Amino acid sequence: MYTDNKNKHIPKISIQRLAVYLQVLESLDVDGVEVITSEPLAKACDVNASQIRKDLTYFGEFGVRGVGYNVKSLMASISEALGINREWPTVLVGAGNLGRSLVGHNGFKQTRFKIVGVFDCDPFKIGEEIAGLEVVCTQRLKEKIADLKVEIGIIATPPERAQRAANHLVSAGIKGILNFAPARIFVPTYVNVEYVDYFHYLYSLAFQITHDKR
Amino acid sequence: MYTDNKNKHIPKISIQRLAVYLQVLESLDVDGVEVITSEPLAKACDVNASQIRKDLTYFGEFGVRGVGYNVKSLMASISEALGINREWPTVLVGAGNLGRSLVGHNGFKQTRFKIVGVFDCDPFKIGEEIAGLEVVCTQRLKEKIADLKVEIGIIATPPERAQRAANHLVSAGIKGILNFAPARIFVPTYVNVEYVDYFHYLYSLAFQITHDKR
Repeated sequence: MYTDNKNKHIPKISIQRLAVYLQVLESLDVDGVEVITSEPLAKACDVNASQIRKDLTYFGEFGVRGVGYNVKSLMASISEALGINREWPTVLVGAGNLGRSLVGHNGFKQTRFKIVGVFDCDPFKIGEEIAGLEVVCTQRLKEKIADLKVEIGIIATPPERAQRAANHLVSAGIKGILNFAPARIFVPTYVNVEYVDYFHYLYSLAFQITHDKR
Repeated sequence: MYTDNKNKHIPKISIQRLAVYLQVLESLDVDGVEVITSEPLAKACDVNASQIRKDLTYFGEFGVRGVGYNVKSLMASISEALGINREWPTVLVGAGNLGRSLVGHNGFKQTRFKIVGVFDCDPFKIGEEIAGLEVVCTQRLKEKIADLKVEIGIIATPPERAQRAANHLVSAGIKGILNFAPARIFVPTYVNVEYVDYFHYLYSLAFQITHDKR
């Protein structure tokens, strides 16, 4: 079972791996798999088995030696540990091309994260409708967030507007920011920030291709 | 110096960290920092100092005890090791909202990855111009890729078209695919695939916010 105490010092990188495990488990569950041992689970997750076992010890013991993990109960435990066993309404700042593609992203249909508000400061975009959501002036973030009980904000603005978007989100009381803009943002320490940086993946591909040739 | 032998078994996760170190070093370099010890470097990279030292040993020793790492030479070594000390022309399949936002992404101006071709199978998009690139029919990928000496393809199609895009890229001789579509793709083992999944980051934020409250 999830115990708060054990969670105190989980490295961030383990959290990201837990998210991968969860997604793999979800697809196993859809395929009707009920029990899985750490080796095939590790293979499907592209990590080694000892890593999986180690990551899962942060949350207590789930696996039965020689039998494996129960897929559904492991999913439930990881969801609970990650805090995603409930809905997470989020708001999006930036109704440009990236913002539009995010609103339409399948993940928001398939997970418990939902985009419930879209904001932009461009008067030409305000009032427009994107997938059933009306684009609202960024100045109104505070009032809207209070209504919607939102804790996570997504920034999909051009880089030069990212800090202003962050300021609006922070003063509206947001607790976490997912920043797609290729710019560092500065927020109080109680606000969590994650940066989405595609270029890490390109670096990784470049490395693999270069290495394959050698 | 970079030695091929040492690189054989670098875990993928270290490659991603190296990409982070490189970006941090680049911004230190811009700020005029010439030498840095592992502790402040680790802090800027959001990992621990022993992790950095361990990751860098894969590439041989760079740091001088009590002095630190020379920023420029460490950048050069990581770039060489990652294989990004040269241009990487890439092509994009999918000229929708996400594709458009990628073509305009600052990273393609600031790094040595360049989008040199945009493809789509939608007759309404073919012939359109996006940031100076004409959208070309996906059927013509093979001929274009040979001309452009491209090894990396980016998929930004809807999920149901991702596999077809991958097939076109593979038969055109691409070596690596960055897949933004929320769908698994199946390719021969000699083709490297990276998936961009935003939801990992949302999971991580949810965990942090949940944990902060406890």
